Amino acid sequence: MRRWRFSKGHGTQNDFVVLLDRENVLAPSDDDVRWLCDRRAGIGGDGLLRVVLARHVPEWDGDPGLWFMDYRNADGSIAQMCGNGVRVFVRYLLDEGLATGPDVDVATRAGLKPASVLPDGRIRVGMGAVTVGTGTVRVTTADGSAYDATPVDVGNPHAVAFGTGVGALDLTRAPVWEPAEAFPEGVNLEFVEQVGERHVAMRVFERGVGETRSCGTGTVAVAAASQARAGNGDGTWTVDVPGGRVEVELADGNAHLTGPAVLVAHGEVSLPNA
Amino acid sequence: MRRWRFSKGHGTQNDFVVLLDRENVLAPSDDDVRWLCDRRAGIGGDGLLRVVLARHVPEWDGDPGLWFMDYRNADGSIAQMCGNGVRVFVRYLLDEGLATGPDVDVATRAGLKPASVLPDGRIRVGMGAVTVGTGTVRVTTADGSAYDATPVDVGNPHAVAFGTGVGALDLTRAPVWEPAEAFPEGVNLEFVEQVGERHVAMRVFERGVGETRSCGTGTVAVAAASQARAGNGDGTWTVDVPGGRVEVELADGNAHLTGPAVLVAHGEVSLPNA
Repeated sequence: MRRWRFSKGHGTQNDFVVLLDRENVLAPSDDDVRWLCDRRAGIGGDGLLRVVLARHVPEWDGDPGLWFMDYRNADGSIAQMCGNGVRVFVRYLLDEGLATGPDVDVATRAGLKPASVLPDGRIRVGMGAVTVGTGTVRVTTADGSAYDATPVDVGNPHAVAFGTGVGALDLTRAPVWEPAEAFPEGVNLEFVEQVGERHVAMRVFERGVGETRSCGTGTVAVAAASQARAGNGDGTWTVDVPGGRVEVELADGNAHLTGPAVLVAHGEVSLPNA
Repeated sequence: MRRWRFSKGHGTQNDFVVLLDRENVLAPSDDDVRWLCDRRAGIGGDGLLRVVLARHVPEWDGDPGLWFMDYRNADGSIAQMCGNGVRVFVRYLLDEGLATGPDVDVATRAGLKPASVLPDGRIRVGMGAVTVGTGTVRVTTADGSAYDATPVDVGNPHAVAFGTGVGALDLTRAPVWEPAEAFPEGVNLEFVEQVGERHVAMRVFERGVGETRSCGTGTVAVAAASQARAGNGDGTWTVDVPGGRVEVELADGNAHLTGPAVLVAHGEVSLPNA
């Protein structure tokens, strides 16, 4: 029986199991990750955040004194980055006294991500470049609603559809897009409506997952597409997701994402034998 | 900030948050229960098992030295009993040294439930009376498959449909039954196929919930309906559910349910302010 200390937390209800593995020795297998993220048989989460000292991570060649975020999807696969996850990661470092704020740099597979904790407790993260594509794709939901959607690249691919009545869309089944070859490896789909000045509400269907309560890069894509559509200059957008509210600042093709991060539980988990 | 000690566990993937509240002082509100059972914002579970000394429970008039299982559904509502939950409850009492085995009586709103831990670690619980009804209702799933289903009373209402290809049924949406007035307060629906001698596999659509990985009273209903259908005498049935396997013993109109129960994590949870 392996007993590991864990925490559970979320950012706008995108939720994570957090494992402290300072010396990079726990070596969770894909099965371990799947089990930890299993909402009924294990703890439950959209993914796992493993907290490792960067000097013990062979693939990291930057500052060895940082903390490295080993992000794993709930299916065990490795991911480069997670916009909501990095906030929860920083919250964990601060709560556990592993870092001092307000500024905390995080080592990730997508490079160094600078984060800051704001006086109100929210966490602001540099998300890097965001690029709004040209042209549109035609997205159709399971209930037959069709939209022209704008492609946006946030390191991963998105298509942002604007409309009304977004809350009533059937996202229990996967929407389809045309032409299919626009996104041969799949795409994250956002459905957006304007609710005020520089303020939008969205739902998201994540590729390979389904509808989720929040998607960090999705909120960045939506802000960038909204700004392009409105013809506005750079500025800050408020984005409502089913799991809460975030703010996206756009400047010179780069984005910062600010939102809440909370740890709800700490404890010890008993993993089944491999 | 309220910090409560908790455990998380499951029986055939019917999962629960367990709270020790010996003196009956925590008083979780409906909102607290919903938050604790919220799989993204809180801990996550199908329900809450609150562990209270029976002498502190005004509604209990039996042996004051027992432990009382305050079972709450994930929506905050009170439930009488939960066949998988009582096994997890007993596992918790044994693991925490609050009771000694192999026999443990549990006080519930549905009366005293006798339980025993078997040498292989499984837990056997007396589930009380089970009554197979007369006649049938017509059950139709969302994909148009139709079955004649047998009504069974296990303290709560069930209708058991026998067929083949049960694994492929669409239970993402609620099946319907005719005549509707057969179950004016709703019914739990089981879809069953024979896989061997006194051995069946089932899926279940719980009223007010949807498809679940397991349902304790549902497995009892299925065993009783299977026995009536086969014209067999009393005996033991093996019942496979999506979350695992249980055994149901039937004798003189009473049932015992035997199955696994496991605690996967222990820790401290920080509840949001009310």
